[in-house]
Amino acid sequence: MSLSTQPYKGARDFYPEDKRLQKQMFSVWRNVVESFGYEEYDAPVLEPTELYASKTSDEIVNEQTYSFTDRGGRNITMRTEMTPSVSRMVAARRQEFGYPLRLYSIPNLWRYERPQKGRLREFWQLNVDLFGVDNILAEFEMIQISSGIMSAFEAQPNMYQVKINSRKLINYLLEDHLKINDVQSESLIRLIDKKDKMSGSEFSAKLNTILDENQRQNNVGSKLLNILSISTIEDLPIELKQHESSQKLTELINLCNNSSINNVVFDLSLMRGFDYYTDIVFEVFDTHPENNRSMFGGGRYDGLIGEFGVEPVPTVGFGMGDATLYNFLFLHNLLPKVSSSVEVYAAVLTGNKNEALRLINELREMGVNVAADFSGNKLEKQIKNATKKTVPYMLFVGDNEVESGQFKLKNLSSGKEEAHSLQRIVSIVKDYRNNDSN
Amino acid sequence: MSLSTQPYKGARDFYPEDKRLQKQMFSVWRNVVESFGYEEYDAPVLEPTELYASKTSDEIVNEQTYSFTDRGGRNITMRTEMTPSVSRMVAARRQEFGYPLRLYSIPNLWRYERPQKGRLREFWQLNVDLFGVDNILAEFEMIQISSGIMSAFEAQPNMYQVKINSRKLINYLLEDHLKINDVQSESLIRLIDKKDKMSGSEFSAKLNTILDENQRQNNVGSKLLNILSISTIEDLPIELKQHESSQKLTELINLCNNSSINNVVFDLSLMRGFDYYTDIVFEVFDTHPENNRSMFGGGRYDGLIGEFGVEPVPTVGFGMGDATLYNFLFLHNLLPKVSSSVEVYAAVLTGNKNEALRLINELREMGVNVAADFSGNKLEKQIKNATKKTVPYMLFVGDNEVESGQFKLKNLSSGKEEAHSLQRIVSIVKDYRNNDSN
Repeated sequence: MSLSTQPYKGARDFYPEDKRLQKQMFSVWRNVVESFGYEEYDAPVLEPTELYASKTSDEIVNEQTYSFTDRGGRNITMRTEMTPSVSRMVAARRQEFGYPLRLYSIPNLWRYERPQKGRLREFWQLNVDLFGVDNILAEFEMIQISSGIMSAFEAQPNMYQVKINSRKLINYLLEDHLKINDVQSESLIRLIDKKDKMSGSEFSAKLNTILDENQRQNNVGSKLLNILSISTIEDLPIELKQHESSQKLTELINLCNNSSINNVVFDLSLMRGFDYYTDIVFEVFDTHPENNRSMFGGGRYDGLIGEFGVEPVPTVGFGMGDATLYNFLFLHNLLPKVSSSVEVYAAVLTGNKNEALRLINELREMGVNVAADFSGNKLEKQIKNATKKTVPYMLFVGDNEVESGQFKLKNLSSGKEEAHSLQRIVSIVKDYRNNDSN
Repeated sequence: MSLSTQPYKGARDFYPEDKRLQKQMFSVWRNVVESFGYEEYDAPVLEPTELYASKTSDEIVNEQTYSFTDRGGRNITMRTEMTPSVSRMVAARRQEFGYPLRLYSIPNLWRYERPQKGRLREFWQLNVDLFGVDNILAEFEMIQISSGIMSAFEAQPNMYQVKINSRKLINYLLEDHLKINDVQSESLIRLIDKKDKMSGSEFSAKLNTILDENQRQNNVGSKLLNILSISTIEDLPIELKQHESSQKLTELINLCNNSSINNVVFDLSLMRGFDYYTDIVFEVFDTHPENNRSMFGGGRYDGLIGEFGVEPVPTVGFGMGDATLYNFLFLHNLLPKVSSSVEVYAAVLTGNKNEALRLINELREMGVNVAADFSGNKLEKQIKNATKKTVPYMLFVGDNEVESGQFKLKNLSSGKEEAHSLQRIVSIVKDYRNNDSN
């Protein structure tokens, strides 16, 4: 029986045209985060399973990990997110590092989910983390970078919205303001996190099963719903408004507005799924009516590095997946066009192989990417092959060319064909490449 | 109990200085293979287990795979090599692709081995494959690219040697010339493949256990040893010398010599571990006395794509690991020096945060990578931090600077400090970067 040619379910093969696009997206990510002084790191795709236990979300650990035992009996898991790995790495050099410490990575992550649009079992995620800054400028930098990335992809500010909230403020609202106990509060946070995925009546029904009889009689549910729907910090009840976290959120919005980032809004129902967030969280949403969903986000997690037995380090970070970004760019018609890395397709028509090899190598040494075709196939077939690969130029290496030193060069998009010296061909191709990459 | 800060055994964390070096090595790989017209692809790190069964080496499949069952009951394996994946991908588009088809990838691979110098459980490997060329120019291109990569790392030709051989010639030697049967022949090939890892007497002893009484009496063992030690095709027994594969090997050596590649030698004992090779194989060896070992290699495998139920495609390819290359470069003192991607460390000394943010962003928009430090830490500490990160320039943003528009810029290697406009700072940094990357 033949082997299947399909990739593993929920994972992608990247053929050259797919890989080109992915590389271009990664290159935009790298340019923006490096402009903010972040340096790239990486960690193994396999980690000890205990690294994830109780640190990421329960849903991921219990239902979505790829976990197994290696040939030496170690329990290992394919990374589901990068935050535990980078925390481990920073903890290992807690004392040697200087702060602020800025790190980024573009790892592939694995989650066993039902594959659907923008959600895959293997995906890549830009991870940006700033260590050692305990004030709001750290959160602001995350939003600056997020906006910077969106602009670099030519997204307009009205195409997306940045929602911000504070975990501390939510805890204060639930436990101090509404007098809801710890256990209820935890359930409520999980419920609010899923609010957008259910109807209003479904949400109210679930809300009531969490509250006790006394709370229901006191209308705690509708009080909570009312407060959650408030969309500016100004309009919060006075106790909440005067809370330290509200002041931080106001400061964050002001910093954004001062930097002409005007699509940041307060949303008290924004939770972010991960358990490790300790204060301000943010999430970026697509405003397109057909894709009105969360794209990426992050927040402050000051406690994670301390789990490795060293002094904690204040940390903010965010992660941005490639599949959701792709959907956004596709829907808004912003996908970058990227051409082949092959610049010249050389059809070798002379029988003098050694001379043809020498000439082609000369072109390569002058910096041109040349794919040589020694097949002797019909020219028509070779031109079709070059065109299919979106190679811009076709070079003919025949006996006449070898003798005269003048080579026919065909521009495969315009169809124009002219004879040039190798030197001249190099400048034509370099000009093309410089114009193409601008 | 605290979590461990160690990565999984045999796998590496890449801190920024490690990642910089890795990226530089990958970038050299990419530049060379793209100059030969190869395009990058990728596949998932998890593949169906059946993809590896009976195609790669028995040792890898039985003892070295990371295999497990996913939550849906599928048997999956972390890729141990890339050849099965790329064969699967080409088979899936057998008809659509035009040939010659040139593909490369730099995947991470996983093998459960005892970690040692140059051998790790997770490693990266450049994979280069040329599809659709059934003549010796394909093998020649593999050796051209291999040499091109070594030169790009500034390796001299005397630092390494390219050994070539032919599987077909070996089969002819064993089965036709020495009349050894199929089963013995297979065992002998595995034995010869491990020849360099054992003493001469150990080898002879094992050789004799494979041969039968009759063969031992006819001195088949010593005949084989004699022939294996022949180092030029010229000196082979006439039957072998006139074999088609010997002629191909001669042609390959001639092509190399015509292109000034003079460190290619014939070695009849070169086997390459993988079962899928069908004809010519090659392997590159470090000639350094302390590291005289195989670095990388490849060969022709015309049968693999046919396993997916499509017409076979003639294919040659090779793979080159990052850990063995690192060892080579280290021993020969060729490791590239790579500086931080951060160009300017901005020490913010003014209380006017908004203005400082604006100025720093202006620098970024002019193309400079700036890490901002708003900590208010002592200058000495900030300079120490910048120096530790190998950032070339320190910028001071104080009240005077903000007012005058002239900013103190300190070159952290020379210690020189001068005041400049932002515009001037941009050109200083760009000059530095251009010189650094040459």
